[in-house]
Amino acid sequence: MKYISLLGATGSIGTQTLDVVKEHPTEFKVVALSVGRNLPLTRKIIAEHQPELVSVMEKSAADTLKLEFPQVNFTYGHEGLTEVAVYEKASILVNAVLGSVGLQPTLQAIEAKKTIAIANKETLVTAGHLVMEAANRNGVSLLPVDSEHSAIYQALQGEREKNIERLIITASGGSFRDRTRDELKDVTVQEALNHPNWSMGAKITIDSATMMNKGLEVIEAHWLFNISYEKIDVLLHRESIIHSMIEFHDSSIMAQLGTPDMRVPIQYALTFPDRLPLKTANRLNLAEIGKLHFKEMDFERFRCLRFAYEAGKAGGTLPTVLNAANEAAVAHFLEGKITFLQIEDLIEKALTNHDNINNPSLPIIQEIDQETRNYVNTLLK
Amino acid sequence: MKYISLLGATGSIGTQTLDVVKEHPTEFKVVALSVGRNLPLTRKIIAEHQPELVSVMEKSAADTLKLEFPQVNFTYGHEGLTEVAVYEKASILVNAVLGSVGLQPTLQAIEAKKTIAIANKETLVTAGHLVMEAANRNGVSLLPVDSEHSAIYQALQGEREKNIERLIITASGGSFRDRTRDELKDVTVQEALNHPNWSMGAKITIDSATMMNKGLEVIEAHWLFNISYEKIDVLLHRESIIHSMIEFHDSSIMAQLGTPDMRVPIQYALTFPDRLPLKTANRLNLAEIGKLHFKEMDFERFRCLRFAYEAGKAGGTLPTVLNAANEAAVAHFLEGKITFLQIEDLIEKALTNHDNINNPSLPIIQEIDQETRNYVNTLLK
Repeated sequence: MKYISLLGATGSIGTQTLDVVKEHPTEFKVVALSVGRNLPLTRKIIAEHQPELVSVMEKSAADTLKLEFPQVNFTYGHEGLTEVAVYEKASILVNAVLGSVGLQPTLQAIEAKKTIAIANKETLVTAGHLVMEAANRNGVSLLPVDSEHSAIYQALQGEREKNIERLIITASGGSFRDRTRDELKDVTVQEALNHPNWSMGAKITIDSATMMNKGLEVIEAHWLFNISYEKIDVLLHRESIIHSMIEFHDSSIMAQLGTPDMRVPIQYALTFPDRLPLKTANRLNLAEIGKLHFKEMDFERFRCLRFAYEAGKAGGTLPTVLNAANEAAVAHFLEGKITFLQIEDLIEKALTNHDNINNPSLPIIQEIDQETRNYVNTLLK
Repeated sequence: MKYISLLGATGSIGTQTLDVVKEHPTEFKVVALSVGRNLPLTRKIIAEHQPELVSVMEKSAADTLKLEFPQVNFTYGHEGLTEVAVYEKASILVNAVLGSVGLQPTLQAIEAKKTIAIANKETLVTAGHLVMEAANRNGVSLLPVDSEHSAIYQALQGEREKNIERLIITASGGSFRDRTRDELKDVTVQEALNHPNWSMGAKITIDSATMMNKGLEVIEAHWLFNISYEKIDVLLHRESIIHSMIEFHDSSIMAQLGTPDMRVPIQYALTFPDRLPLKTANRLNLAEIGKLHFKEMDFERFRCLRFAYEAGKAGGTLPTVLNAANEAAVAHFLEGKITFLQIEDLIEKALTNHDNINNPSLPIIQEIDQETRNYVNTLLK
């Protein structure tokens, strides 16, 4: 039995992690979890999974739930996230929270020598150097949950890193892949939330439409696989069937394929280095699909991807700025306060405005993160 | 330095093996090799690679060459093949001869505990049970050189065989993939030899056009990967870019991709479990290719593939009959003695005519092989 702690249980990756756990009740048990503001779903999860510890966002919710589930321990807020992350009985942390709020609990869990299944890419984007240093020092594995990084991780098994020529991260193109920049001026939030292939949370769906999601993934891949940005390519592939690839220096390319189903990479992270059946998965039928399409990435059409490469290559606090500005801008877009193309503009201004700091410590990252959000907010006034 | 013995040095796989060796002169040296009837090419190979032992087809050729290359030892005929296969200094045998003539030298090399890089699929088709039994008993690795099996072998690294759901072997469709059966009646040898993707020897190119090549590969995969025929699928994929795939029981599919270049799987077999750069390889550019196509296999259109599955499942001496009848029929077709569709008819008659013998020994296989060739010849009279 593998005991799991799960950050972000009520989100898209969180609920799918719980689905995977339900498919294998003799293999996995979630003993500690954190939730968002969805209390009805939280109640359902507690009743079904009987966790020992649950962290909610506010104290009031903890008090309410304690009356209903007296056998469960409740905690809340930022400290609650860390309590869940380091919960002693768990050997693996699935980090599926949204945004850079996942950073501190991840670092704490690494120090507690938990294996980390990481879906929270913002953690690696904002502080990859700190996370990887801690993971290496503690001998802790970081198992990717993102479908692209899971594909690369799977393709890397039995291979040697020294033989990698380049990573090829595939990109569906997001909701607006068939529109020109001119046609992006008046798009609505609803249109942006309509991803062609994947059903995901709102933030990542917008990130897919701006291609920032792919940019964050490039930075994530840089850290996870210890590879220079020059060796990471992005390829447009509208069907999201080839989830990503590694080209080795003998020209051989290893790829992982499947229908778009996040439960597969989630389960792989939980079962690694083994696999388990996933009976409810939709099997890929390439003959039925008939064709797979590939197209060169357009860095003018998708400016956010260019920003991400530039911030990643520059390093220092610039990736923190990129991520914080993006989180703030996307939140504003989702609230209807800015247009779709203004997301890019806000990020660009934040990056231009920033004086980069090399090799930043955690407090500096947290400070720059907050400063950037404030700066983006002032731009709106 | 890895010392190599090479059977079939003047053939398509043989010359490409020598190309790979030339790319890595400090890693590999061919110390023993066998050649066909092409003496000018043989002279060139000897001058370039300075082997210690060369086996030719007839004694007269050995005598002629000995005068020109006094420092080289020459041998000939069937015994010569075996001498090369078991050459003491070599640690690995690349078996790239054509047809079931490769069986005996392979078995001898296994007993001599050589690693076997096997391009000679007929050996596994005709006597897979004997070859695998000997390999397992001697702890010898069989490394596939066929691009499809190499793809599966690469995809299997770091994975566990128990987790395999099925193998998906891709097929380009061969020279006549866009023709109906009616349009096959009057095709010429020249047309059949015009493979759309791969430049290969005559026999395998005809086998590709009849789809028998894929049938032989299915049987080869059955033995190499110890997997039932029910778990081996064939998928039409006209570009030959995805060389083959493994689907695991979690629905994840691992695939190996590349431009059609046999030097890649050849080199992989020589460098396994490591890789080496292959600077002259054509790198795959999926954006340039744009589309990959997939189509269900048609077992009525490609009857030879159905014969192969049936012979494989039946086992015993039936695969030997399948292979020998095919070798004989293809030879007749190449000599212009029969039409393209008669290849299938001859194989079908040979299979129907045969009384299957279970678990045959080597002498029985050799006898049935010869009997089948004779039977096919009598059908032509």
